Amino acid sequence: MSKLLYSASMSLDGFIAGPGGDMSWLTEHLGPEPAVDDLIPRIGAILAGKRTFGGDDPHRDDPEKAGQAFGGGWSGPQFVLTHHAPPVPAPGVTFVDDLAKAIAMAKGAAGDKYVNVLGADVARQCLAAGELDEILVFVVPVLLGDGVRLFGHPGGTNIRLEPIGESGLWFRVAR
Amino acid sequence: MSKLLYSASMSLDGFIAGPGGDMSWLTEHLGPEPAVDDLIPRIGAILAGKRTFGGDDPHRDDPEKAGQAFGGGWSGPQFVLTHHAPPVPAPGVTFVDDLAKAIAMAKGAAGDKYVNVLGADVARQCLAAGELDEILVFVVPVLLGDGVRLFGHPGGTNIRLEPIGESGLWFRVAR
Repeated sequence: MSKLLYSASMSLDGFIAGPGGDMSWLTEHLGPEPAVDDLIPRIGAILAGKRTFGGDDPHRDDPEKAGQAFGGGWSGPQFVLTHHAPPVPAPGVTFVDDLAKAIAMAKGAAGDKYVNVLGADVARQCLAAGELDEILVFVVPVLLGDGVRLFGHPGGTNIRLEPIGESGLWFRVAR
Repeated sequence: MSKLLYSASMSLDGFIAGPGGDMSWLTEHLGPEPAVDDLIPRIGAILAGKRTFGGDDPHRDDPEKAGQAFGGGWSGPQFVLTHHAPPVPAPGVTFVDDLAKAIAMAKGAAGDKYVNVLGADVARQCLAAGELDEILVFVVPVLLGDGVRLFGHPGGTNIRLEPIGESGLWFRVAR
């Protein structure tokens, strides 16, 4: 059965984007990332938010590099959670307006591989729904001080994680 | 010459305390930490904020465990940055009301060892003053969602770090 894995590049101080969703700080740090290369073959589908899909890829204007933020040229099925599907369909992309439906479709497409969740807001929704299985963080050597958090929950919460003995900061969400 | 090292235990999502400075989440995770044990002998002095010194130690009411949050029983000189020194002096503790003076005194006391900076606010002040040399983060396997950030700077900033090839997430602040 497919599992939901939220992966993100994060500044040391816990931000996955700067104020206003600015991803430009990340651009200079993008490059070969062996851990990401290892992960790609284990991903069967991507589940992303509209913002991650459409706006936050720092290379979105560069056809040769676009999609690197999604993991260096991965081209499998993508499911985008949005209430505002664009009028022109994108190849390989399915727009879904319901979380449970989007998760079910992505899991179906992923088979026994991971559904890679991208975007803090979708990840938060999956976590709140009890559907997020694992989290993998790549720490980028920079301090941002402010911005979009890896996982924001006003008022706080306390969700225990269990380290998985693999590369990077890889954890299982305890239930 | 002594260097200033900010060390902190941080939730995976970037918080060193919960909302309102709540450190209770950390208590259950306190225990043997080999990386901290390795660090202790390399620390010559502690530079902390009043809040870290007086209030945020989750074991402050337990004489046997108090100070563990400062690194498992380390008992060298401490310098506390505050405008409100308590009327009764504490052994080994010097209260200083000026950052530059506190840094100079802590460095003097530390000799060729590290000045260990504790507390997000003091760390932020040291960083802003160009005095912070290194940052070491211990990731605690928990998601807090909200709280006190490792390093908060409203509006954001972009401070480049250089990984140091030692244990944990240890970085040099690039200048």
